[in-house]
Amino acid sequence: MTTALLTDHYELTMVQAAMNAGTANRRSLFDLFTRRLPSGRRYGVAAGLGRAIDAIENFRFGDEELSYLHERGIIQDNLAEWLANYHFSGDIWGYPEGEVYFPGSPVLSVEGTFAECCILETVLLSIYNHDSAIAAAASRMTAMAGDRDCVEMGSRRTQEWSAVAAARAAYVAGFASSSNLEAGRTYGIPTIGTAAHSFTLLFDTEEDAFRAQIDTLGEGTALLVDTYDVESAIRLGVELTDGRLGSIRLDSGDLAIMARQARDLLDDLGATQTKIIVTSDLDEWQIAMLQGAPVDGYGVGTSLVTGSGHPTCGFVYKLVARCDSDNPDGELKPVGKKSKGKNTLGGRKFAMRRRGEDGRAETEVIGLGTPPVNDGNDRDLLVPVFKKGELVYHATLEDARQRHRDSLAELPLAARRISNGDPSLETLILDEEGAETTNPYQAAPVVKNI
Amino acid sequence: MTTALLTDHYELTMVQAAMNAGTANRRSLFDLFTRRLPSGRRYGVAAGLGRAIDAIENFRFGDEELSYLHERGIIQDNLAEWLANYHFSGDIWGYPEGEVYFPGSPVLSVEGTFAECCILETVLLSIYNHDSAIAAAASRMTAMAGDRDCVEMGSRRTQEWSAVAAARAAYVAGFASSSNLEAGRTYGIPTIGTAAHSFTLLFDTEEDAFRAQIDTLGEGTALLVDTYDVESAIRLGVELTDGRLGSIRLDSGDLAIMARQARDLLDDLGATQTKIIVTSDLDEWQIAMLQGAPVDGYGVGTSLVTGSGHPTCGFVYKLVARCDSDNPDGELKPVGKKSKGKNTLGGRKFAMRRRGEDGRAETEVIGLGTPPVNDGNDRDLLVPVFKKGELVYHATLEDARQRHRDSLAELPLAARRISNGDPSLETLILDEEGAETTNPYQAAPVVKNI
Repeated sequence: MTTALLTDHYELTMVQAAMNAGTANRRSLFDLFTRRLPSGRRYGVAAGLGRAIDAIENFRFGDEELSYLHERGIIQDNLAEWLANYHFSGDIWGYPEGEVYFPGSPVLSVEGTFAECCILETVLLSIYNHDSAIAAAASRMTAMAGDRDCVEMGSRRTQEWSAVAAARAAYVAGFASSSNLEAGRTYGIPTIGTAAHSFTLLFDTEEDAFRAQIDTLGEGTALLVDTYDVESAIRLGVELTDGRLGSIRLDSGDLAIMARQARDLLDDLGATQTKIIVTSDLDEWQIAMLQGAPVDGYGVGTSLVTGSGHPTCGFVYKLVARCDSDNPDGELKPVGKKSKGKNTLGGRKFAMRRRGEDGRAETEVIGLGTPPVNDGNDRDLLVPVFKKGELVYHATLEDARQRHRDSLAELPLAARRISNGDPSLETLILDEEGAETTNPYQAAPVVKNI
Repeated sequence: MTTALLTDHYELTMVQAAMNAGTANRRSLFDLFTRRLPSGRRYGVAAGLGRAIDAIENFRFGDEELSYLHERGIIQDNLAEWLANYHFSGDIWGYPEGEVYFPGSPVLSVEGTFAECCILETVLLSIYNHDSAIAAAASRMTAMAGDRDCVEMGSRRTQEWSAVAAARAAYVAGFASSSNLEAGRTYGIPTIGTAAHSFTLLFDTEEDAFRAQIDTLGEGTALLVDTYDVESAIRLGVELTDGRLGSIRLDSGDLAIMARQARDLLDDLGATQTKIIVTSDLDEWQIAMLQGAPVDGYGVGTSLVTGSGHPTCGFVYKLVARCDSDNPDGELKPVGKKSKGKNTLGGRKFAMRRRGEDGRAETEVIGLGTPPVNDGNDRDLLVPVFKKGELVYHATLEDARQRHRDSLAELPLAARRISNGDPSLETLILDEEGAETTNPYQAAPVVKNI
């Protein structure tokens, strides 16, 4: 499928007007960033780059798309011709997928002609605003789960294609697997499943259902034990497998108490290796509350795929610099709007994470001029993604998972608290001369946490 | 694209186990419903049926899908063969798209073999949980906007394909148009656009930008006037069009005050026909607060596409009845799980809206037996969608819009209040004998509003 029409109407009319006015080819630089983190969040997680790359490569206007636009009077012949040959030919830098970010972090920087950069706005924002929201929620959940597995099971609670993207974003942020088969097929994410209540109810007895499941899926399967009576179901599952049952799933009631009772019963019956998976409206707080319960895995649905209270990130995509002529070697001049509460920091930026002697991250440094001399502890955050239209970023999902683990491990410990707080790193903005200047973004005062 | 893998892993392993056990062909009935409305909401809006039909018709397992499933050991040969020939052959009834619903309303009922109904669970829930969440938010916004247009502009705040579905759901619930081009192409929804700040910043002066926009898009265009100074921008726009400027867009600051000032200035300048469109984090409350301001249209983004605080609906898909043999003419027996707080009302249901003499809706009647005698005021809610696998529902999006207007108009006036409240209709559950019985769904006591 082409991604070309996953685009706001005005992107094309702006390009049309710029083309007619002779400004469409002015070299331009757009930053994708957020002015603030969702209220109370201590860090963001950059997710979506892999999907953004796919979207850019599939941003193609075929006959069907062009006919639609033309017939509706949205584009004229000169733009139609240009769109028919559209291929992003500029440069893109970005935070590697899985990296954490803070207010003002230039998570993605897109440079090229105004036209070729402008029309990518909507689809890039859609991807980043969704995927990073899910990854941020997932990161808090996996932090609370510690060594226990989190399984993404939220497909049914979000739009069907969002579900696939959500499974991917959750995997970036440490989830072990997903129930979503398209995510398995498309991204190679491990998929798993248990059984639903309907399966038990289909059979004349719970025993028939359990036997059927074990016959086909083996003793290692996960039996759902709360369709009728939990204790009877556990006894039955253990009996049918001679104590070798893989796991049970609890999906209702007070999970802490039920997990304790189930563990005791399983152990009494000799099924000491049988694992306990819990599901049912879990979120990071529920997972934290279950840390003391004998639980082996968490199946998370609604809260994960809706970003646990923050289903979108507030990423914007702003023109921050442009040439004042078509000269491809002309000077990029910083620009920024003055709208109240929505001002933008113009100019090309570098981004680095300043770390202390102990390797602990201390500051997010975003600067407009030459990067300060690296004292050996700083870490550059922007990597090239496209160079002159050619893809140069080839990180895998496993790389993204590793990047997330590493960047999280380096943050102050307070970053991993799920209570509401300020961003765990202060963003330092350096002007062209390298002097510290006001951060226009995070609205609330940024207090550095210990 | 096939929708076949927009499915949870366990749907296929359950069908595999049932197939091996000889129960996969038991005639079964699944209901899609919600146990409660999102906290504080007074009604739900059934949206997604048109997309659900498309998903069912595109639920096809080709070689690629089957290879993936087979190689991962998710399916065996007998299931692979059955999936290769999958075509839903059963019956589906549903609430027409746009209809309002209440806790327990059987918004969709799917009857067929266990296998063919079971594997549709995930994709049907994904569609309904998303689309109905957006439609419910949209309905509250259009109710507050009254005769003024609401325009869907949220594509960038949600996943890129969710954006298309969101535009459609908002349109069902009364939005006038959308910025999303794919929604325009796929569903024929009117698309519109204004311009972004980047467009103004691209040019050397605001005047150059406005001239370029007017040259290409005509005097009827909408100029974004808050990139620099609002008053100067309005004066400029009026001057360049000799007072015939179509509209201005305000995207920042206190919109009520700014709209008042802009209206006065436009009128002073003789541009009395120029409209004022406002955007910037609008939701139903902001729209309500702007009722007294001289605003002509609302562009709504984030809040709409995230369901205004409720991004998902809580729809579940439950086996409520099944035969105990493969006999296709066998008796459907009610079933229901007993899980704590999650019990299900078994059996085939009818649904009707009971209305008073004045045509005002009074009660949502969901019953298990024969429908009560219609006193002429009752309205049947379920319509056939598929009969023996054949599509028999052909409502258009315009039909859905009309259905939404009509069903909303019939509700008690209190339904349209945006403050938190109970469901505006009580759900009455009738047992097999037609006697009133306990509604197991809405957790909070349902108080009938006046």
